[in-house]
Amino acid sequence: MRLKPDCIICNLSIVLRTLKIISKDEEFLFRNMKKAVDSISLVNVEQFPPELGGIVYKTIIESTKVRDPYKYIKRKQNDLILKNYSNFRKSVLNSKNPLFEAVRFAIIGNVIDFGINKVIDFTKDIKDSLEKEIFINDYRLFKKELEFSKKILYIGDNSGEIVFDKLLITQIKETYPDKKIIFVCREAPIINDVLIEDALQVGIDKYAKVMSSGMKLPGTILKYANKDFVNELRNSDLVIAKGQGNFEGMEEEAIENIFFLLKAKCNVVADYLRCNIGDLVIKRGEY
Amino acid sequence: MRLKPDCIICNLSIVLRTLKIISKDEEFLFRNMKKAVDSISLVNVEQFPPELGGIVYKTIIESTKVRDPYKYIKRKQNDLILKNYSNFRKSVLNSKNPLFEAVRFAIIGNVIDFGINKVIDFTKDIKDSLEKEIFINDYRLFKKELEFSKKILYIGDNSGEIVFDKLLITQIKETYPDKKIIFVCREAPIINDVLIEDALQVGIDKYAKVMSSGMKLPGTILKYANKDFVNELRNSDLVIAKGQGNFEGMEEEAIENIFFLLKAKCNVVADYLRCNIGDLVIKRGEY
Repeated sequence: MRLKPDCIICNLSIVLRTLKIISKDEEFLFRNMKKAVDSISLVNVEQFPPELGGIVYKTIIESTKVRDPYKYIKRKQNDLILKNYSNFRKSVLNSKNPLFEAVRFAIIGNVIDFGINKVIDFTKDIKDSLEKEIFINDYRLFKKELEFSKKILYIGDNSGEIVFDKLLITQIKETYPDKKIIFVCREAPIINDVLIEDALQVGIDKYAKVMSSGMKLPGTILKYANKDFVNELRNSDLVIAKGQGNFEGMEEEAIENIFFLLKAKCNVVADYLRCNIGDLVIKRGEY
Repeated sequence: MRLKPDCIICNLSIVLRTLKIISKDEEFLFRNMKKAVDSISLVNVEQFPPELGGIVYKTIIESTKVRDPYKYIKRKQNDLILKNYSNFRKSVLNSKNPLFEAVRFAIIGNVIDFGINKVIDFTKDIKDSLEKEIFINDYRLFKKELEFSKKILYIGDNSGEIVFDKLLITQIKETYPDKKIIFVCREAPIINDVLIEDALQVGIDKYAKVMSSGMKLPGTILKYANKDFVNELRNSDLVIAKGQGNFEGMEEEAIENIFFLLKAKCNVVADYLRCNIGDLVIKRGEY
């Protein structure tokens, strides 16, 4: 999916929220916002949304010299959701179809995204989502492919959300103990996207091999990925890609058996998928 | 009130909405958005919000060569609200305090603003506002000053809203037939701000002299205003300034007996006024 004009406004909003985490000083905010604004000239309409996100974010990170403004927030969010982990696990195990329920939780967890949503208190969003049907639902296809896959590559998206990824990964490993799972994180801090430290904090490494894709953008775009990741991607039987950033960067790629699990969070992605903002999506890649 | 970093995002959103009125073509939208983005480098933190609004808007007007993208929308909005004029008039006349009620309607009408609000169907907003108390309420002061004023300068804000300005002006003229009222419009099309043609369309010229301030910005800033307007401003006994743009540009000016009538529509103005978004305000100028 290529950049839309709306992405400019959305990404500048992310930048401003990020800057406000660093300082409330208006001169600081205005000066750094202008630098981010200037960096937009580097982007063209053929690029992918995470490239724009990466450029404006890198601009303010270099300018402010604050490498990871969300560091404390990410750690806190992971802890907060981990506290409720056993309740979520019970819900999954007590449901009629635990694997489907774990998939649904993994999609619902995608609501935790400081990139697009302002909401810090996401508990209401999660509760609301629990009532929702999945709008684009390739679950049956997903289930079938999962059964036949030996090696699964699971590309994470956000911190906090990663606890729900652990819930799904745990469920897959319990249902199919022989499957090999690789959990993929970003390389460098970018908004609240998952890093290897998040995977270790929530204990995903007990169920999956953890690695970096090499990405420094809020999404996955193969031309920027490291070799190890691309090798694993090509050698996996099933790819699970969480969230909008991974969808935006990879849905045009010829990747076999890739399933995008996400919540549509902005009108650009919702229009592209022909769904509404807030809809839950399990979509098999079309290539 | 000086520019805040949030104004950058808000004004780019206005630009994008405006461009989408002209064309839905994505290459067109992206190209013109980038021009608007580039023009932000001309602005500094000491300027007023309507100056930023004027610069980005002028950039796309020059670039697209569409002089007045809101022309049709403005005409339609005026007509639509005019159709309900007699109902609003009855509400005013049947209320306990018709002059106060007319002031309240004039503030509520300020909800009709394509600059900040996306809402085209504003009827719900108007109904909701009718239930609301006025949060910052200098009405008693306003009433007192009005009684003693011979000459009143009334600075309009948006089309559509202008029908509610007519409602208030009519009520003032009925209560005090000897008062002289001047209704002030912008000089050139800027978003959906009032032009002389709007004042003529809704028939304000029957109750007030109609003139332009010379402004080509979405607000009033005296250094850009024409001489006639500044003369009238200095020779008036009471100034009524509608909406955020007039407030943002004039609240620092030493203008005697100026009253700002507005609905707080964004967090920047709401924070500045220490009220909430959506609150209704009658505020006497502090200088």
